[in-house]
Amino acid sequence: MKQVVTFGEIMMRLSPPQCQRLSQAASLDVTYGGGDANVAAGLAYLGVPAAHAGCFPDNAVGRAAAQHFQHHGVDMQHCVFRGHRLGLYFLEVGASLRASRIVYDRYDSAFANLQPEWFNWDAVFQNAQWLHWTGITPAISATAAQATREAIAAARRRGLTVSADVNYRRNLWQYGQRAQDVMPELVAGCDLVVCTEGDAEDLFGIRPEAGADNSFVSVSRQLMARFPQIKQVIATRRSTQSASHERIRGLAYSGGEYFETEDFDINPVVDRIGGGDSFISGFIYGQLTYPTVPQALTFATAASALKHTIPGDINLVSAAEVEHIVAGNTTGRLLR
Amino acid sequence: MKQVVTFGEIMMRLSPPQCQRLSQAASLDVTYGGGDANVAAGLAYLGVPAAHAGCFPDNAVGRAAAQHFQHHGVDMQHCVFRGHRLGLYFLEVGASLRASRIVYDRYDSAFANLQPEWFNWDAVFQNAQWLHWTGITPAISATAAQATREAIAAARRRGLTVSADVNYRRNLWQYGQRAQDVMPELVAGCDLVVCTEGDAEDLFGIRPEAGADNSFVSVSRQLMARFPQIKQVIATRRSTQSASHERIRGLAYSGGEYFETEDFDINPVVDRIGGGDSFISGFIYGQLTYPTVPQALTFATAASALKHTIPGDINLVSAAEVEHIVAGNTTGRLLR
Amino acid sequence: MKQVVTFGEIMMRLSPPQCQRLSQAASLDVTYGGGDANVAAGLAYLGVPAAHAGCFPDNAVGRAAAQHFQHHGVDMQHCVFRGHRLGLYFLEVGASLRASRIVYDRYDSAFANLQPEWFNWDAVFQNAQWLHWTGITPAISATAAQATREAIAAARRRGLTVSADVNYRRNLWQYGQRAQDVMPELVAGCDLVVCTEGDAEDLFGIRPEAGADNSFVSVSRQLMARFPQIKQVIATRRSTQSASHERIRGLAYSGGEYFETEDFDINPVVDRIGGGDSFISGFIYGQLTYPTVPQALTFATAASALKHTIPGDINLVSAAEVEHIVAGNTTGRLLR
Amino acid sequence: MKQVVTFGEIMMRLSPPQCQRLSQAASLDVTYGGGDANVAAGLAYLGVPAAHAGCFPDNAVGRAAAQHFQHHGVDMQHCVFRGHRLGLYFLEVGASLRASRIVYDRYDSAFANLQPEWFNWDAVFQNAQWLHWTGITPAISATAAQATREAIAAARRRGLTVSADVNYRRNLWQYGQRAQDVMPELVAGCDLVVCTEGDAEDLFGIRPEAGADNSFVSVSRQLMARFPQIKQVIATRRSTQSASHERIRGLAYSGGEYFETEDFDINPVVDRIGGGDSFISGFIYGQLTYPTVPQALTFATAASALKHTIPGDINLVSAAEVEHIVAGNTTGRLLR
Amino acid sequence: MKQVVTFGEIMMRLSPPQCQRLSQAASLDVTYGGGDANVAAGLAYLGVPAAHAGCFPDNAVGRAAAQHFQHHGVDMQHCVFRGHRLGLYFLEVGASLRASRIVYDRYDSAFANLQPEWFNWDAVFQNAQWLHWTGITPAISATAAQATREAIAAARRRGLTVSADVNYRRNLWQYGQRAQDVMPELVAGCDLVVCTEGDAEDLFGIRPEAGADNSFVSVSRQLMARFPQIKQVIATRRSTQSASHERIRGLAYSGGEYFETEDFDINPVVDRIGGGDSFISGFIYGQLTYPTVPQALTFATAASALKHTIPGDINLVSAAEVEHIVAGNTTGRLLR
Amino acid sequence: MKQVVTFGEIMMRLSPPQCQRLSQAASLDVTYGGGDANVAAGLAYLGVPAAHAGCFPDNAVGRAAAQHFQHHGVDMQHCVFRGHRLGLYFLEVGASLRASRIVYDRYDSAFANLQPEWFNWDAVFQNAQWLHWTGITPAISATAAQATREAIAAARRRGLTVSADVNYRRNLWQYGQRAQDVMPELVAGCDLVVCTEGDAEDLFGIRPEAGADNSFVSVSRQLMARFPQIKQVIATRRSTQSASHERIRGLAYSGGEYFETEDFDINPVVDRIGGGDSFISGFIYGQLTYPTVPQALTFATAASALKHTIPGDINLVSAAEVEHIVAGNTTGRLLR
Repeated sequence: MKQVVTFGEIMMRLSPPQCQRLSQAASLDVTYGGGDANVAAGLAYLGVPAAHAGCFPDNAVGRAAAQHFQHHGVDMQHCVFRGHRLGLYFLEVGASLRASRIVYDRYDSAFANLQPEWFNWDAVFQNAQWLHWTGITPAISATAAQATREAIAAARRRGLTVSADVNYRRNLWQYGQRAQDVMPELVAGCDLVVCTEGDAEDLFGIRPEAGADNSFVSVSRQLMARFPQIKQVIATRRSTQSASHERIRGLAYSGGEYFETEDFDINPVVDRIGGGDSFISGFIYGQLTYPTVPQALTFATAASALKHTIPGDINLVSAAEVEHIVAGNTTGRLLR
Repeated sequence: MKQVVTFGEIMMRLSPPQCQRLSQAASLDVTYGGGDANVAAGLAYLGVPAAHAGCFPDNAVGRAAAQHFQHHGVDMQHCVFRGHRLGLYFLEVGASLRASRIVYDRYDSAFANLQPEWFNWDAVFQNAQWLHWTGITPAISATAAQATREAIAAARRRGLTVSADVNYRRNLWQYGQRAQDVMPELVAGCDLVVCTEGDAEDLFGIRPEAGADNSFVSVSRQLMARFPQIKQVIATRRSTQSASHERIRGLAYSGGEYFETEDFDINPVVDRIGGGDSFISGFIYGQLTYPTVPQALTFATAASALKHTIPGDINLVSAAEVEHIVAGNTTGRLLR
Repeated sequence: MKQVVTFGEIMMRLSPPQCQRLSQAASLDVTYGGGDANVAAGLAYLGVPAAHAGCFPDNAVGRAAAQHFQHHGVDMQHCVFRGHRLGLYFLEVGASLRASRIVYDRYDSAFANLQPEWFNWDAVFQNAQWLHWTGITPAISATAAQATREAIAAARRRGLTVSADVNYRRNLWQYGQRAQDVMPELVAGCDLVVCTEGDAEDLFGIRPEAGADNSFVSVSRQLMARFPQIKQVIATRRSTQSASHERIRGLAYSGGEYFETEDFDINPVVDRIGGGDSFISGFIYGQLTYPTVPQALTFATAASALKHTIPGDINLVSAAEVEHIVAGNTTGRLLR
Repeated sequence: MKQVVTFGEIMMRLSPPQCQRLSQAASLDVTYGGGDANVAAGLAYLGVPAAHAGCFPDNAVGRAAAQHFQHHGVDMQHCVFRGHRLGLYFLEVGASLRASRIVYDRYDSAFANLQPEWFNWDAVFQNAQWLHWTGITPAISATAAQATREAIAAARRRGLTVSADVNYRRNLWQYGQRAQDVMPELVAGCDLVVCTEGDAEDLFGIRPEAGADNSFVSVSRQLMARFPQIKQVIATRRSTQSASHERIRGLAYSGGEYFETEDFDINPVVDRIGGGDSFISGFIYGQLTYPTVPQALTFATAASALKHTIPGDINLVSAAEVEHIVAGNTTGRLLR
Repeated sequence: MKQVVTFGEIMMRLSPPQCQRLSQAASLDVTYGGGDANVAAGLAYLGVPAAHAGCFPDNAVGRAAAQHFQHHGVDMQHCVFRGHRLGLYFLEVGASLRASRIVYDRYDSAFANLQPEWFNWDAVFQNAQWLHWTGITPAISATAAQATREAIAAARRRGLTVSADVNYRRNLWQYGQRAQDVMPELVAGCDLVVCTEGDAEDLFGIRPEAGADNSFVSVSRQLMARFPQIKQVIATRRSTQSASHERIRGLAYSGGEYFETEDFDINPVVDRIGGGDSFISGFIYGQLTYPTVPQALTFATAASALKHTIPGDINLVSAAEVEHIVAGNTTGRLLR
Repeated sequence: MKQVVTFGEIMMRLSPPQCQRLSQAASLDVTYGGGDANVAAGLAYLGVPAAHAGCFPDNAVGRAAAQHFQHHGVDMQHCVFRGHRLGLYFLEVGASLRASRIVYDRYDSAFANLQPEWFNWDAVFQNAQWLHWTGITPAISATAAQATREAIAAARRRGLTVSADVNYRRNLWQYGQRAQDVMPELVAGCDLVVCTEGDAEDLFGIRPEAGADNSFVSVSRQLMARFPQIKQVIATRRSTQSASHERIRGLAYSGGEYFETEDFDINPVVDRIGGGDSFISGFIYGQLTYPTVPQALTFATAASALKHTIPGDINLVSAAEVEHIVAGNTTGRLLR
């Protein structure tokens, strides 16, 4: 099978163990992740060849970040090692009514300072069938936005499927351009987008039509009208009970039809970071594997539910393990 | 008080900490357990003298396994140290809808290669009142089955009570004999058996009678008819909510009467391994202590519920702690 | 702002990690706490200057205990370093239906052996507006009771607000005086007391009046009649579901009016020790900040709920974090 | 083989990991040890049956202490569980020129409060050939001294060999009697004593004779003249290079002859606690095994050297491992 | 006693445990340090009141850094919490012939972005007798250099003693000014400087005079001629054997006299970071305590040697512990 | 550059942390290694493309083992996942005079049960320039020996360089064939062999000629006479001081000339496992990089010395780091 390629920043994640706060921690658990690379790694575990293109500082920290994804099966040969620092963030893991908190320290990272010409997209995509990116990447810097633009263009040129998680984070856009100006062109090149009603309003000014039965359908339909290349819009709907208890369901609008899964109940949540990314890797796997959208959507949502039970950003589950959940085995009976 | 003696294999258990998967673990928590030895250790904590007969490799790993049970109060003087390897298994602890998973690596263990003549049962039982064994032991090898046969015969000869957890595990029976051929003779020598409806069907072809009100009673009655030495059949009924949330109740058919406890709710589950074994040690304690079966059964079920909150295979609780639960103190109010 | 000063014993707390029992632990998590000093530290995190007066052995253990509170922002300059041992306790953390258990080892501590003249209360209170103490302090020894007496007198003399958590622990009173004889005089000097119906009966023989609509109001009214200095009585009401699941609400009787918050649901509980102390620091903060009692009470209860999610005795939360909960954000949505 | 029995206090030992100081430690490694019980455990590893008589608080801490020695093979059936606290100490492990430091917290322990009549020495010695005690035991309390006296008397009556590590610790003797008054009678009942020149002077006023070639011989000869039951005096001579580097040699005066081993070089030292105790268990093993004193002495010194490389108080080595060192294999070549 | 005040940047230090490399680490030990603040903390342990002025981001990371120094006794009330990130570095701890390695990630830190007017030096020095700074501070940014300049001026104005560790780090000076232009003015305001021959040449172009007997004396004399305020020059001379084995001696040129200590041998080194800072805190303590320079110098060097045995940046030793080494107790004999 | 390919078994390695013995360990550090795969990983760190061919059980344990080498940069695409168990071993790490000890549990592993036809050597070598194997591989089973034979034949056919570490382990050869019969044919196909005098005698009956000046030269010359394909013989000579202190030098006989490096002193040793493998990866790197044998040999020996300071089996060092040592920087001076 050909590769799914992702592009974006990978950061170091540092968390106090055992729900501690930073002010009491003597050690920090360290892992690495990124909204796009997590999708690649999730796919690798599901058996889909995956590669990631990124940029890391040429030091022990940058090497360790890239090796983390090699460990989890991602082809990192197209990564560039130039620049001075790896973006990082501190995660204080919450519990019950105390939310998890992130303190970012990511500005001026090697990735933010990349030069678009460092990536030869034709080489990157030589063995690829799919490009996935997220709205975080063009938010980081003008050069990162430009590289995204070039990646999408090359992907389209070579006939790859293109997907995006639009994922609008207001605080990130600080280099002088507005998401509202940058994102439309990029999204226009996508076949599949992950986009909630909130993102649609913030980025594209699209609101549910008055009197719409289903706001997600209404918004998705408008999105597809505006960007005709888009053929599917998907999202998860979370009904968060607490930092330790989550319910998620998957939504898809595809080919004029709306699909929605049952809720998956996750209690306790072990690690919610990467929950959305695992939904996407699940859906891409589903698209490549199953004949129908509901099958792909259920697989994706079950995959995401499983991710919430696994430490770290990456969904360390096989396709068989997801199918086991899809088949209704959600009571956690011991498997010998 | 005289000893309760158990016989069977003890394995090393290796688990990634903190719900990690094996592919991300840098260390593994190590403990030791076995379905029969866990009963002995549970009894020792309840104040009942207990001994275990087993076979370990004569190396640092085998010694460590035996010492683990010495630590927890089991008399290990009748254990044999011969052979080359200790059986072991890897346990990935699940959470929520992700089930815990076991990867076994137990074939060709020192225990599987034991010779029946290494055990002098008259010496082992010199100070004993009870023998307990599980259906796992005769499944391991022909010599293990033969040793079980000899142990039961010696126990009967000396007037000990004999109990068994029939515990049918299809995958284990690989040495050329069928459980269905081996187990009946062994079970015939028992006074008390732990046996679910599923085990009864798989091992003895016994199904609930058509129209039976209570399938457990129906099956137990047939079992006692087939094996007249059996005077009591007990079991737990689990309604597993998730890998982190369990409900259990105890069932007993004894002297023509049926007893059933209320559900005990366990949320979260800390460690479910050994949950069944702690029910048995609780019931044996109960039989030796209380005048009525319901008392013993409630004690056993409360003991098993407590086990689910304790790391490792062994139920590290005193009789007073179980009685505290039996008395209705299940809200976990801090004890100073 | 002027300081809130607390007075009392700080102990070392030793707990097996990961819900282990003492008999299986190879290391113990160590922290330090005390019912009064925890209030001071909680206030420091909320931005209120706080100091603690206590007594520690003049060795590495005593210094470490004091430094722990310095770390968390408490002014420890009035502490005395004399004597031979620090009181300590072992905490086995429970889960689900297994209660947490404490084994105390606190007798003959440096604090118990303090001499009242070691504390120059006028110096301690030089920059203070408030004294808070707990009923544990006068329970420890005659000299500790005498020092409490002198502290309250000095505080009154200097016009400080005085509050107490009456916190009756029968087992502690072992130096030959009865709580019932000692406490009334001390409580008489307080403006605000934390006192449950149980404490009121045990310490002061005050029971709800027959036919009272609200036992807490009835008891509080009698308490205020008996001790006219008291202007407010507060408490939390816990409906403990299990060692891992707690619900708490705050109660206050103040100025002839009764207030009660909604329940806060905490599931799972990470660490319940210090839950009451954080309620008090929250209420003191609230009194100093908000115009109305209900605001202070809600803040206090939300603060206490948050404490249950934080390891250790101290409530490591800012006022903004508590206000976030008060504003209804209890679903633990990730904060970036 | 018959048992070697030891008598004395077992304490909890709490150490910050990784050479940390107490003021920076978030967890403490916990183990248990005692100068006499360590000898018993060391013997158990060498294959000599060993039992310990002691007294522990009847709580989770006391049980854990006793279980630790059960784990390591010591028969603890003669231990008594009465009293309120276990003695404990904090050990800050040094390195290089920084010495390890101990902060004791052992007063008023369950052992200190024992009653001599709790021990039925005839029962304890039923299957014994040897009693070993240390000078720490009679230092703890008058009742501990009395129990030691009775144990020695019973041992002599039953024909056991009696050995003592006289081990004078000035600070310990605080119950109103002087070591110089108590110890002579106890030592008079011994066949073998571990006694340095310093101890001999402090306890018995014995100094090397003027002009003596060998002060150890001179002192030992006088000791044996004063206490004719003593047939052997042994000791180790340490030339400590640093907290991380030790050299030890063994000395024995026996049957009018003096023996001395070569130096054993230990660099780095992993854990020096119990180094002397392992010398004694090695010498007792040697006496029971080898025909000559030099063989026993070399074995003992090699055993002690090995102990310095093992974490905890107990010498977790087999006789074969010690013999491997005795045979000159001190270069640590990997053993497969 | 009046305070010693330090001024400079505090960074987070992240190290893989157990000599691991970053590419294999699953957790990182976290601590905080800075060349100047370490001096303050070392002084606090020696009993000298110490305060630190610095600048931290106003987030959980910045608060934790400041709290670390509060824990260790430093008055942090003059610190400013403004800005976005805390400088940090990764430390791979070496062993034997493998050197420890640092990867810095400190640019654009809150401290680098400080505004000089945020510090009111008259307020900071209200209770001070001494200002200590390092050459790292003016290297960080133009504003940091300016603040240093103002601090020194204010200190001189108020009659404080001023000391500096000139500590030239070529890589740091990246904001457009040269150390060679900035440092002379700052050093001109100092009474005491720590300066090696290498620093003197790099910063001030001062080389040992041809034929000088002692290069340190020659350089120090020239330095004092150039900067007449300087009355003492001190330094340590390291003869590093390996990453695990260090020898240090102290040098001082004072009042026209030269002093040099014996070598202190440190094997193994536990943590060399902060070794120079502890020499300085030791020397300041010595100046404030002892009548002669050799006494202060020996104390300082012994303090520095001890630091090498303690994890973290800070010298967690009391004056008595240093004096114990000064008295010749370097063999690490266990202290009970 | 083309790949270096290795072939052989990878095992799980389980070690008690901190020099603990198995009988006291509550967790085990886990890593993975194999004498040949370690060479591949070492080369990957040095910048030489490397691939490994092996066989793993198709379960979570086997996957984790393979992922470990992916993490460290080895191309694992030619590995086969079939069979039931991963070989493993327990390593008790020694210190000072206590040797490290290994307990093997490797029989009947997936690798031992491989079928030669599972490996298509032409595919494996498609992009390769070098094959390296060790004498452990043909010792494991007849099929493993046959696969080695086929790999060497294919490598020769394709013109690859072939190297072997002959590494005779008597205990391993248990499948019915003798090393002395199997190895000569395999070694005959090699260009470079690692072979000590001991191995030469044990495997080939080659002894130093009487009167030979240099036994290594004498043996190497005979070996090359017997197997004319061999052009170089290399080895390390260890003078082990203790389990914590090692000295190594490199030896090479090449083109009729003998070379020998200086000793590299390693004190303390952090982890000696893989020390020989890192010598080989260093020498292969050296052959591919440097014009002369002495340069390659010095590089190899320095690389091996560095490995002794790194936890785990793999030499996590860059070529620049080795060159830093070769340049004489062995005093471990901190690198910023």
